Amino acid sequence: MRRTITGFSNPTVKFLRSLRDKKHRRREGRFLAEGLRLLTDARETGRLPEMLVMAQGRETHPLLDELERAVAAAGGEILEMPGDILAKVTGKDNPQAVCGVFAEFDTSLASVDRAASPIWLVAQAMRDPGNLGTMLRTGDAVGAGGLILLDDCVDPFSVEAVRASMGAIFTQAVVQARWEEFITWLRADDGQGGGQLVAASLRDAVPYRGAPYAAPCFIMVGNESRGLPEEYELACDLRVTMPMNGRADSLNAAVAGAVLAYEVLAGLDKV
Amino acid sequence: MRRTITGFSNPTVKFLRSLRDKKHRRREGRFLAEGLRLLTDARETGRLPEMLVMAQGRETHPLLDELERAVAAAGGEILEMPGDILAKVTGKDNPQAVCGVFAEFDTSLASVDRAASPIWLVAQAMRDPGNLGTMLRTGDAVGAGGLILLDDCVDPFSVEAVRASMGAIFTQAVVQARWEEFITWLRADDGQGGGQLVAASLRDAVPYRGAPYAAPCFIMVGNESRGLPEEYELACDLRVTMPMNGRADSLNAAVAGAVLAYEVLAGLDKV
Repeated sequence: MRRTITGFSNPTVKFLRSLRDKKHRRREGRFLAEGLRLLTDARETGRLPEMLVMAQGRETHPLLDELERAVAAAGGEILEMPGDILAKVTGKDNPQAVCGVFAEFDTSLASVDRAASPIWLVAQAMRDPGNLGTMLRTGDAVGAGGLILLDDCVDPFSVEAVRASMGAIFTQAVVQARWEEFITWLRADDGQGGGQLVAASLRDAVPYRGAPYAAPCFIMVGNESRGLPEEYELACDLRVTMPMNGRADSLNAAVAGAVLAYEVLAGLDKV
Repeated sequence: MRRTITGFSNPTVKFLRSLRDKKHRRREGRFLAEGLRLLTDARETGRLPEMLVMAQGRETHPLLDELERAVAAAGGEILEMPGDILAKVTGKDNPQAVCGVFAEFDTSLASVDRAASPIWLVAQAMRDPGNLGTMLRTGDAVGAGGLILLDDCVDPFSVEAVRASMGAIFTQAVVQARWEEFITWLRADDGQGGGQLVAASLRDAVPYRGAPYAAPCFIMVGNESRGLPEEYELACDLRVTMPMNGRADSLNAAVAGAVLAYEVLAGLDKV
């Protein structure tokens, strides 16, 4: 059954708006995803929103009808509201006609089977939600298992990160861990086959092109301003350099991760 | 001589704030760049701001002193203002302690010498200033000559694009052109050696890895949502595919451009 909301001061609107804030997402264990495409991607991976929110006066779409039926059948809630209220919920002037509330996933290292994929992406202290979402999207494209977020990264469940992931938030595993936890897990001889930790570096590094990558390969990029801490670089199994022919001597973190990931993909395919 | 500004309603503050708006940038032919690092990069490439704006109470820095002397020697204007006014100018809560006003560059195709570099990046209808700035930064890293913006792209002189470029706005040529102009220029037999137009595509494409790239190579990416128009793909000299092993079958436009650019760089180096 659909419920219609007409006022900005409705408690459900307040709840939805609160999910734009990390503190509230954490407390509720819920996050927002916008747009029919994203919600359809989610459904195809077996994830349905607990609450489906649609703008009044939207265009009808067969995929939206299917989605609504699936959410209702799963016992979820269906809401309708005016477009201007939905715009306040998503914080976008030009909101998509639909959004959904999802339960946050388990983001512990224990939830991850490293043998499930030859490539994993690792980001340390990544601060930009667009970069984080872009890394999830790149991970999906190269067939990575997921994205491991080390230390104080921006929230992967923020509206901006979810948006930039273009649905990959639903296809990639997302892990949140401190460095010590991660490196202990990576090095633990738990029968999962270990893993090769790789980063771009200038420290006794080999050319990234054709370097001896080995699965499961964990490709690590550092913070947007500071790069990786020295200790993290030194703990890598393989340090690689990428050509820097310009003045600035740096790449966007998500771009560096993607160029490396495609090189690793090509390298592993040759074996 | 330094001039001190104390009020929000000062006409110079209004002028500076107006530069956050594309219409005003176009009318004034001026744009804003923030941060000592960016301004130092600009100076090293021979570009000085016409106006240097510094926050009162900033920390002193030898590079800032040098910059101030250089701007003054070139007849530029030096301003000081409280940090909260500077924050309104740059639109950032946590502004850098310095920004500068630069004259916009010539962005015509006629300003470009295609033989100056083996790689050029081309973006069509790119809408995200972060993506645009990231492409400039990638161009700098691979030693590209510049970025050619086709059709209705976001303004390369927006504060956000300049910021994301990390200084590459000063090292890369930036061209703005319509498709018809560009393709006519590219194909013109003007003794500049033509050029190879390359795009990622699914249309009779060859694997991007080891494809027969040739300098000067123009790597074209399409709009973030719609990709490239069919006509533009068909006009390419080389269409390449990149592995897509996930569900979403797409990459961020700036990421796709970077992965291709590094592949082209490696391919051209082998010749």
